Amino acid sequence: MSETKARARRAGASKLHEVPGERLELVPRFAAQGYEEADVAARRAWLEEKLGCSLPMIGAGAIAGPTMRGNVENPIGAAQVPLGIAGPLLVHGEHARDIFYVPFATTEGALVRSYERGMLALTRGGGVTARVLQDENSATPLFAFSELEQAVELARALPALFPQLAEAAAATTAHGRLVRVEPRVIGREVLVTCVFSTGDASGMNMVGRATHAVCELLVERFRPRRWLLMSGAEAEKRAAGALLAGGKGKSVVATARLAPAIVRSVLGVEAALMVECWRASTRAQAEAASLGINVQAANALAAVFIALGQDVANVVNAATAVFALDASADGGLELQVHLPSLTVATVGGGTGIGTAPECLDILGCRGDGHARKLAEILAATVLAGELSLSAAVAAGQHAEAHDRYGRKR
Amino acid sequence: MSETKARARRAGASKLHEVPGERLELVPRFAAQGYEEADVAARRAWLEEKLGCSLPMIGAGAIAGPTMRGNVENPIGAAQVPLGIAGPLLVHGEHARDIFYVPFATTEGALVRSYERGMLALTRGGGVTARVLQDENSATPLFAFSELEQAVELARALPALFPQLAEAAAATTAHGRLVRVEPRVIGREVLVTCVFSTGDASGMNMVGRATHAVCELLVERFRPRRWLLMSGAEAEKRAAGALLAGGKGKSVVATARLAPAIVRSVLGVEAALMVECWRASTRAQAEAASLGINVQAANALAAVFIALGQDVANVVNAATAVFALDASADGGLELQVHLPSLTVATVGGGTGIGTAPECLDILGCRGDGHARKLAEILAATVLAGELSLSAAVAAGQHAEAHDRYGRKR
Amino acid sequence: MSETKARARRAGASKLHEVPGERLELVPRFAAQGYEEADVAARRAWLEEKLGCSLPMIGAGAIAGPTMRGNVENPIGAAQVPLGIAGPLLVHGEHARDIFYVPFATTEGALVRSYERGMLALTRGGGVTARVLQDENSATPLFAFSELEQAVELARALPALFPQLAEAAAATTAHGRLVRVEPRVIGREVLVTCVFSTGDASGMNMVGRATHAVCELLVERFRPRRWLLMSGAEAEKRAAGALLAGGKGKSVVATARLAPAIVRSVLGVEAALMVECWRASTRAQAEAASLGINVQAANALAAVFIALGQDVANVVNAATAVFALDASADGGLELQVHLPSLTVATVGGGTGIGTAPECLDILGCRGDGHARKLAEILAATVLAGELSLSAAVAAGQHAEAHDRYGRKR
Amino acid sequence: MSETKARARRAGASKLHEVPGERLELVPRFAAQGYEEADVAARRAWLEEKLGCSLPMIGAGAIAGPTMRGNVENPIGAAQVPLGIAGPLLVHGEHARDIFYVPFATTEGALVRSYERGMLALTRGGGVTARVLQDENSATPLFAFSELEQAVELARALPALFPQLAEAAAATTAHGRLVRVEPRVIGREVLVTCVFSTGDASGMNMVGRATHAVCELLVERFRPRRWLLMSGAEAEKRAAGALLAGGKGKSVVATARLAPAIVRSVLGVEAALMVECWRASTRAQAEAASLGINVQAANALAAVFIALGQDVANVVNAATAVFALDASADGGLELQVHLPSLTVATVGGGTGIGTAPECLDILGCRGDGHARKLAEILAATVLAGELSLSAAVAAGQHAEAHDRYGRKR
Repeated sequence: MSETKARARRAGASKLHEVPGERLELVPRFAAQGYEEADVAARRAWLEEKLGCSLPMIGAGAIAGPTMRGNVENPIGAAQVPLGIAGPLLVHGEHARDIFYVPFATTEGALVRSYERGMLALTRGGGVTARVLQDENSATPLFAFSELEQAVELARALPALFPQLAEAAAATTAHGRLVRVEPRVIGREVLVTCVFSTGDASGMNMVGRATHAVCELLVERFRPRRWLLMSGAEAEKRAAGALLAGGKGKSVVATARLAPAIVRSVLGVEAALMVECWRASTRAQAEAASLGINVQAANALAAVFIALGQDVANVVNAATAVFALDASADGGLELQVHLPSLTVATVGGGTGIGTAPECLDILGCRGDGHARKLAEILAATVLAGELSLSAAVAAGQHAEAHDRYGRKR
Repeated sequence: MSETKARARRAGASKLHEVPGERLELVPRFAAQGYEEADVAARRAWLEEKLGCSLPMIGAGAIAGPTMRGNVENPIGAAQVPLGIAGPLLVHGEHARDIFYVPFATTEGALVRSYERGMLALTRGGGVTARVLQDENSATPLFAFSELEQAVELARALPALFPQLAEAAAATTAHGRLVRVEPRVIGREVLVTCVFSTGDASGMNMVGRATHAVCELLVERFRPRRWLLMSGAEAEKRAAGALLAGGKGKSVVATARLAPAIVRSVLGVEAALMVECWRASTRAQAEAASLGINVQAANALAAVFIALGQDVANVVNAATAVFALDASADGGLELQVHLPSLTVATVGGGTGIGTAPECLDILGCRGDGHARKLAEILAATVLAGELSLSAAVAAGQHAEAHDRYGRKR
Repeated sequence: MSETKARARRAGASKLHEVPGERLELVPRFAAQGYEEADVAARRAWLEEKLGCSLPMIGAGAIAGPTMRGNVENPIGAAQVPLGIAGPLLVHGEHARDIFYVPFATTEGALVRSYERGMLALTRGGGVTARVLQDENSATPLFAFSELEQAVELARALPALFPQLAEAAAATTAHGRLVRVEPRVIGREVLVTCVFSTGDASGMNMVGRATHAVCELLVERFRPRRWLLMSGAEAEKRAAGALLAGGKGKSVVATARLAPAIVRSVLGVEAALMVECWRASTRAQAEAASLGINVQAANALAAVFIALGQDVANVVNAATAVFALDASADGGLELQVHLPSLTVATVGGGTGIGTAPECLDILGCRGDGHARKLAEILAATVLAGELSLSAAVAAGQHAEAHDRYGRKR
Repeated sequence: MSETKARARRAGASKLHEVPGERLELVPRFAAQGYEEADVAARRAWLEEKLGCSLPMIGAGAIAGPTMRGNVENPIGAAQVPLGIAGPLLVHGEHARDIFYVPFATTEGALVRSYERGMLALTRGGGVTARVLQDENSATPLFAFSELEQAVELARALPALFPQLAEAAAATTAHGRLVRVEPRVIGREVLVTCVFSTGDASGMNMVGRATHAVCELLVERFRPRRWLLMSGAEAEKRAAGALLAGGKGKSVVATARLAPAIVRSVLGVEAALMVECWRASTRAQAEAASLGINVQAANALAAVFIALGQDVANVVNAATAVFALDASADGGLELQVHLPSLTVATVGGGTGIGTAPECLDILGCRGDGHARKLAEILAATVLAGELSLSAAVAAGQHAEAHDRYGRKR
């Protein structure tokens, strides 16, 4: 038995419980949670032996075990996802003012080519204008009382308490700031949405801590029967109508205009046909009771979130996008997309680990002061994808593009 | 200048267009789209030089360039994401009947630990029962006519045409099968949802090709003014009420029951408190106009989808989950979750590339014949997360867990 | 004391319960629930005396007390609502093929004038084409089991049981027919949507009874722990995404085309401007997380439902409409509206009482064999309102129209 | 020919247009729009002759023609709807503090009896606590620009402009007051939600006029390409997720608590069973992609809105309710309902015409100063219905209750 396997066996020896005919084994933890290189290897070896499989590729990753602390538990190596690059994408933002090449971590064939095509069209057309309108994140604690009157009392007292609550929040974080609190009495319970500016972090940890401080103050004063830090009303990582009003991340808008010649030459389809098809699609989407209207904003968000070390589960809230495609006065296209709840970060979370810092470098978005720039680039990227897919749908090329670039099955 | 840089420079030399003061450059393509190792390296070098950054980690990935063909375009290397393992998870499915250790590709600290805790509780409680109820995928083409009567004619003719349409679809794929067509006249347009069984693939490429064949037949016969292969009504990668009725992937259910002692010892909270908190959360979620009810199903889906080479953008449709937590007769918990539109695959797409095959091996789900097994494991995994997060919310530990395991910001 | 007051006092003398300082009184019931004219008058007198108010107008209604039996309890008279007439509306349906004048019971000033304007434009433009695509109603019982496997067993057994279930349903009604059953396992519970054709009645009573018979058969065979006849999933009188797929009433479509000259002369606005404004409105509605897309379909539905003795609470499901407004090839307008869940009846419910039969006569829709005709007329009516309001919005006349016709406040 | 017929024939003689084979006739207008009694009779006679039907009941209504001016156009008489009374309902509100008997205009058999049963249980249980939390109404104009930057400019300038906008709004109405403006940039367009307090009126006419004044000021300053007074984002008379956050009418909450003995004796079912059934129903409703969670709030709203001269189409927004039913500590029930967008009025609109003033008198809610009282009574009424229906669903009595009281079909 190799040393790594022996190491794992020693750490994982703890039996948990006897399931009929089985002896449960915990994943080996080792000392200090097992972030040493040798621990990671030993845990992998334990798994290989236990399952009778071989995991060389997982072990071939280059992320050092100790650097994973704080980002993952029970590490066994690294997942590797193909990384492609799409561009050039010319963005005229307030924060992003450059030509960008955007990294996509994806295994969906034809995806990068499709975005590249959209970017090319937008860039040749003069580029994408982008703006960040709101920039905040929120948690919505719930306070449950025995009587409605008590819930109402808290709700009505809230405006006067704001300075104290903001101070309590401020004591927990140097980066976040409580910007407003919004009560909603729903019965004996009152929801209190706590909205923060979060700087360049996604900020949910900071929001959690600061909201906790707000809650402690409210709990002490109003003595609810129960309270929840995260009631679920914040729609974190869930699809919800409330997301369209913002409050979860950045509200970003991107717009562009394309001359008819560019639509024709780069996208190979007539602008008027695209507009007609898009209008039909908007009602088809309404018939599906869709939240937002878009072609597939999630495609770019997922691929770029993986590349950039974002919290990928936030794609669910971030993809609640409203895209529009209209005819311009000169017979070309006017495009726009609104991403009301785009949760992105350039510091904290997974932005400092694995290949994420390098991918952030590719966009010039590494570290403090770059989150709004990143939001503008992402909105422009989504717009490129919406444009390209809309063109493909209009041209009936959808199936064919996949056939040419994608694996068949 | 190094050889890789020179190679890139030659390939990327094509100027596109003059933006004011800029010379646009396409991402270098090289011969045959540039999947040779040297091409990948050269493309990366081109980017490094162009942007003045350094991308060693992206280059340190172990995915061979040529194997990326069909999964990504313009490859520059691989994204690396920390991979942790959570388990043991005992599943009593029709297809999955074993104890599993589930790989999570994530950078969200405390996530793996949270799922591990949930899995431990469920497994010690006797395991998770899981079943796949529907197993299909769909596209919804739209046919636009000049007059309502023509749309009605197509809709009414559809049942009688089904055998022909199924035959046309069958000619395009050996793996998929058209199981039904559902027309919906929405005006001069008719939506025709084409539902397929897709075997072990996610199947959207297959669905696209087969639906195209169906469309050609309908187009020839009914001569619509316009038609769209994908109208948007299929809610692929978008959040939509229609997803709850299924039709996009597998409809899977997982249930479990926990004795009060296990809730107390593993989760550190009273069952009755969890039930009370969950009930308050369901109305908080309703107040946010949520689609589905769950804590954060997206967390597991995103992390496992990345690890397993799934199409990660499908997290948006897959996360439309309805979770429930009730008191059991003995004072413990009864749990269940319904994932109506879980799009997973064990063949095709990204399942054969990078670390995905190894991660599929960890679950015993590599290759043909394993997609339903994978769906059952995933539903059980989601249930574990819902359980653990619900306990954390009830115990007020939410903020604290992040503080202990996650990076702060 | 008058005889009517004395009569009421005797009937209402039963004391219920002592609330602090109060003696509760039930509404007087009299013999046989009190539908005699004298009972109705006495009940009204009781109320007048108790509250110290005067209710002559309520007593001036012409509905005979005994005819109210089965439609209302504790009758005190009749509500009176102003009734206006809008038309002419030319409809080319399969069932409605005529020029109609539509009765509106409303107190919203300018409403009838607005619909009249829309009808005039549509009629002069050549009329409205309308079709009923689906015609059914449904209930969704829920069966709760102790174990998931049992729920799955019921779901999988359902197709083979259909003939028996249909027979059981048929034994309860001469007018309805079970057309399909659709199971959805959501955990230990299974939802079974029972879809019926209901002839010319709205049919929810019939659906309730027939579904009850279906349930009894399923309950006997599968022995659920609990079952609910109406689970809530049928979205009866509630807004829900599921309504767009139909199953609750009639799925009706109406379309029309208007030459630019008619748009200009009748609506006083340019067609192109209307199209542009409507497109902006569709995204504004998406931003509000709207269900369906329309201007205010509920206006016509509410006013006509009151006039025609429909169940007015069904306006909530019926108003889930998708309207569209596009430019036609000649510079005019193409319009269409889809009402997927329009619950209307020409027999049963309130169709035989008060002024409803006369209002049904105005449309030639009284009695058996007219429900689909009524659905076509209503869809055309909704289209007229959408057209007129869209024009008003585009012309900026919205506020002014109210000023001219409506009461100010 | 009678004089009324002759009168109508003269007024309606104007031919409109020749449809193939038809001569279109406008509804006769007479002088001054035809509100004289004789005009109303003549218009009815015209319709009778034209259609060959007889409308005596419509003519038997007691609403004087001239009083209809401002509430309906082309009047032909009055619709009559059976009016029943349900109570006693004990309400502990801030504005409503009394025992009430509530008038229902309905033709749905068993409805009044069901609400009466719920009211009885609530009243005997100690009554309903109710509170109005928000009290406002809104319109959301849209301003479309050529460039995104211009939309952003308007949005960012809005806070500083608020005093001017409020002043402009104030000049148009003595009853309403602009309380805040909320911009949302969605592309080249910006939505500006203008929120008003509206006193005791529903206030949409006032809101329309005041918003128009706000728009004129913004239009003059920012020169948009286009603007819409009502963009559709205000979700007036439509179902939309945005309604749950309030802003459209009153946000009202009602709560109550019932001892187990009352549940058993009045409702004939065990509290624990009701709670269990309700929990199953909440997930069934989630599976239907419902907006809000409730049994059938629309039932009460529709019936009371008709009786009280409310704008009945507002039932669609008002019915977006979140109801909850939990076990209380003593084995009884805790109930609550939140109506976030309840649009009710005691002045203006239809509150002064027909039987509405008398029905408002029954509730002591006629005229100025009573709108919040009415909102509290209505929330308590809805709670009574939710309770009674929940009990019926739990007891499996749903079908039977209809059989006993309702007409069969």
